[in-house]
Amino acid sequence: MSEDDCWMAEAIEIAWGGLGHVEPNPMVGCVLVRDGQVVGRGYHERYGEGHAEVNALEDCQAQGNSAEGATAYVTLEPCCHFGKTPPCADALINAGVARVVVAVVDPFDQVDGGGVQRLRNAGIDVVTGVLASRAESQLAAYLKRVRASRPWVIAKWAMSMDGRIATTTGESQWITGPASRVGVHELRGRVDGIAVGMGTVIADDPMLTARHGGPRTPARIVFARKRLPAVTSKLVQTASEVPVWIVAGPELPETELSQLSARGAHVLPVASGDVVAMIDEALLRFGGSDNPSGGPMTHLMIEGGGELTGSFVAGDFVDECHVYIGAKVIGGRTAAGPVGGNGIELLADATRFTVDDVTRFEDDVRVIYRRAVGDAES
Amino acid sequence: MSEDDCWMAEAIEIAWGGLGHVEPNPMVGCVLVRDGQVVGRGYHERYGEGHAEVNALEDCQAQGNSAEGATAYVTLEPCCHFGKTPPCADALINAGVARVVVAVVDPFDQVDGGGVQRLRNAGIDVVTGVLASRAESQLAAYLKRVRASRPWVIAKWAMSMDGRIATTTGESQWITGPASRVGVHELRGRVDGIAVGMGTVIADDPMLTARHGGPRTPARIVFARKRLPAVTSKLVQTASEVPVWIVAGPELPETELSQLSARGAHVLPVASGDVVAMIDEALLRFGGSDNPSGGPMTHLMIEGGGELTGSFVAGDFVDECHVYIGAKVIGGRTAAGPVGGNGIELLADATRFTVDDVTRFEDDVRVIYRRAVGDAES
Repeated sequence: MSEDDCWMAEAIEIAWGGLGHVEPNPMVGCVLVRDGQVVGRGYHERYGEGHAEVNALEDCQAQGNSAEGATAYVTLEPCCHFGKTPPCADALINAGVARVVVAVVDPFDQVDGGGVQRLRNAGIDVVTGVLASRAESQLAAYLKRVRASRPWVIAKWAMSMDGRIATTTGESQWITGPASRVGVHELRGRVDGIAVGMGTVIADDPMLTARHGGPRTPARIVFARKRLPAVTSKLVQTASEVPVWIVAGPELPETELSQLSARGAHVLPVASGDVVAMIDEALLRFGGSDNPSGGPMTHLMIEGGGELTGSFVAGDFVDECHVYIGAKVIGGRTAAGPVGGNGIELLADATRFTVDDVTRFEDDVRVIYRRAVGDAES
Repeated sequence: MSEDDCWMAEAIEIAWGGLGHVEPNPMVGCVLVRDGQVVGRGYHERYGEGHAEVNALEDCQAQGNSAEGATAYVTLEPCCHFGKTPPCADALINAGVARVVVAVVDPFDQVDGGGVQRLRNAGIDVVTGVLASRAESQLAAYLKRVRASRPWVIAKWAMSMDGRIATTTGESQWITGPASRVGVHELRGRVDGIAVGMGTVIADDPMLTARHGGPRTPARIVFARKRLPAVTSKLVQTASEVPVWIVAGPELPETELSQLSARGAHVLPVASGDVVAMIDEALLRFGGSDNPSGGPMTHLMIEGGGELTGSFVAGDFVDECHVYIGAKVIGGRTAAGPVGGNGIELLADATRFTVDDVTRFEDDVRVIYRRAVGDAES
C-alpha cells in the first residue's frame, strides 16, 4: 500500500458511518493530511447536512489546525453544484488545500468530472482512482441508482443447514435464533423499501417494520399480481403510519384497489402481469427521481417469499444476498427452499456472487454475498 | 485460565497431529512441565506406534531434560494395559513424574479409571477433568465408538446459496469450486468409510476415492435396498483395489450378490429392508470389533445422495455435518436439496447442532456443525 492508499483506506472506513443516514446521497469520507499528520477528518453524516469535505474542514478548524497546503483524501469526487449545501470543491479551494486525492469520480450528472475540473482550474493537483475498487464497492448502491435509476436490491432469507425455509407442514418460526433476527431488523432499519409477495402477506400477515429502530423507515412494498392484501391485514391497517405500496398488476379490480387507497395504501399500477416485468417496472419507478414515495430509493430489500425472490433472481435483479443459516436440519423432498420459481437449468446461467462477509450469530451463520464485479448488471 | 488449563490446551492442540493416522486409537497429546517450563512434548502419531506419554518422555530425554518431578498433562487417561505398546502409566511412574493431569478418563474397558488408579497407587498426584469438555470434543469420535460401538457419522454436502444440490435438470457439477473440493478430498482421506445410496451410484457412477491422498483409504459403502450396483460400475470395477461394501437389504437376489462378491465386493446382508433400520444395523457392525472390514471404524462419511442423507437424519445418526455453500443461486421449486426423505414436521423435532468451524474457500463457505452436547445421541 502506498501512503495515498493508506489515507484513502481511512477515508473509506469513516464513510461507513453514514450508511442508512445519508441516502439518497452517497456515503463519503474525507481525511485531510499535512506533513504525514491527519489535520482533519469528516464524513457525510446525514442527508441534508454537511458533506464529508466540509465536515473535515470544520474538524480541522475546531482542532486549531490549518488545511493550508494539505492533501484532501475524498472517497467520491467533490461536488461542484449547489444542492442542499454549497459546492465542496469551492470549500477545499478556499481552505487552501494543495492536493486532492479522489477514489471515484461521481457519475451524477451535476458533477461527473466537474468537481475535479473546478479544482484543477484553481491550480490544485488532483489524482483520481486511488483505491477505486474498494470505494466503488462501498458506493455500489449509490452508483447503481445514479447510473441505472434503480435501487440496489438485497435479498434476505433464513434457511436451515440444508436450505429449507419451512418444514413440510409449513412451520418456519424459528429456523434462526434471536441474535440473527437483530441483524435482520438492523438491515430493515437502513433500507428504503421492503418487498414481499402476496403469498407471504396471506401466510404470515407480516408487519415488516424495523422492530429495533434504525435511521430509516422503509416503505412496505407488496407485489400483487392476482390477489390483493385484505383491508384487515396488518400492512393495510398500519398504512397511515408507515407507507405501504401495492405494485398492482393489470388484472386487479379497480374497486378493490380504491378500497386499499382509501385505507392509506399507495397503489402503483404496472402495465404487465408478468412478475419479472412487474418488478422491472417497479424498480425503475422506485429508483428514479419520479419515485412515487418521494426521493429515489437506494436500497430495496426482499423479504420473500420464495416465489417473489425467485422472480427477482429470474430477472437478474439481485445485487446482494444476506443468507442466514440456522443450525438445524429440516430435510424433506417437498420442504420449501428460499428461492422458488422455475430456477436455472444450467449452472453456467447462474449469476455469480462473491462472499462479502461471514458472521456468526451464536450458532447461526450469516453470509453476505454481492454480485461479482464484471457479471452483467440488470 | 489456570496454569493447568494452559498446559492442557497445548496438549490438546498437539494431539490433532494424529487425526486420521491413529484410528481406531484416540488422538492423545502429552506435555511434560517442570518449574513452569516444558521439558517434553509428544502425541500419538500413528496407530501401532508410541503413545503420547511415551513420545513426550522420549522427547524429554532427547532434549537432555529429566522428567523427574515433572507434571504430565495428558488429554486422555494413560493406559494401564499391554496393547500394541506397554502401559503408559508405568512409563510415567518409571520416569519419576510427580503429578499427572488428565482431561478425560478413558471409557475403554481395559482402562476405565485403571490408569489413574495405577498412578495413584505409585504415589503420584492425579487430577482429572481439566479442560474436559474441550478434550471430549476432540475425542468425540473415539468416545462414541467405545461407548456405543458405532462410528462417528459425518454428513457432507455441497449446495448453492439457496440450498440446492442440482439444477432442475439435474446439473450439479460444479456448485462449489476447486478449493472446496480439496477440502472434501482431505476429509475422505482421513475417514474409514464413505457411504452412498444407490441413487448416487446409478446417477454419478462415482469412484469415491481420496484424490489427493491422505492417511487412510476409506472403504466405499453402498446402501442397497432394492437395486445393486452394476458389475461395470466404477465402484465394483475397483473393488479389488479399495474395499467396497454392499449393505444389502433382504429383498436382493442372491445370484446378483454372488456376482458382486466374485468381483471382490464385500456383501453385508442386513435383516431389515427399511433404510433407517439398515443403517442402524450397519453402523453397529462397522463400529464394532466384529466389523467385517477388520478393525472398527471410527469415522464414517456420507456423500449422499439426498435420500440416503435424509435416512441418516431421520434415524438421528448424524454427529457432524460439513456443509459447503457455493456462491450461486439455483432456485426452482423442484430443484433437489441436500437432505431428502420425509423431513421433520415440527422444528422442535430437529436435531440441534452447534457451529464448530467456518472457513472460506475463495467464494465458497464451509460450515462444520456438530451435534449439540446434551442432545440425545443415537
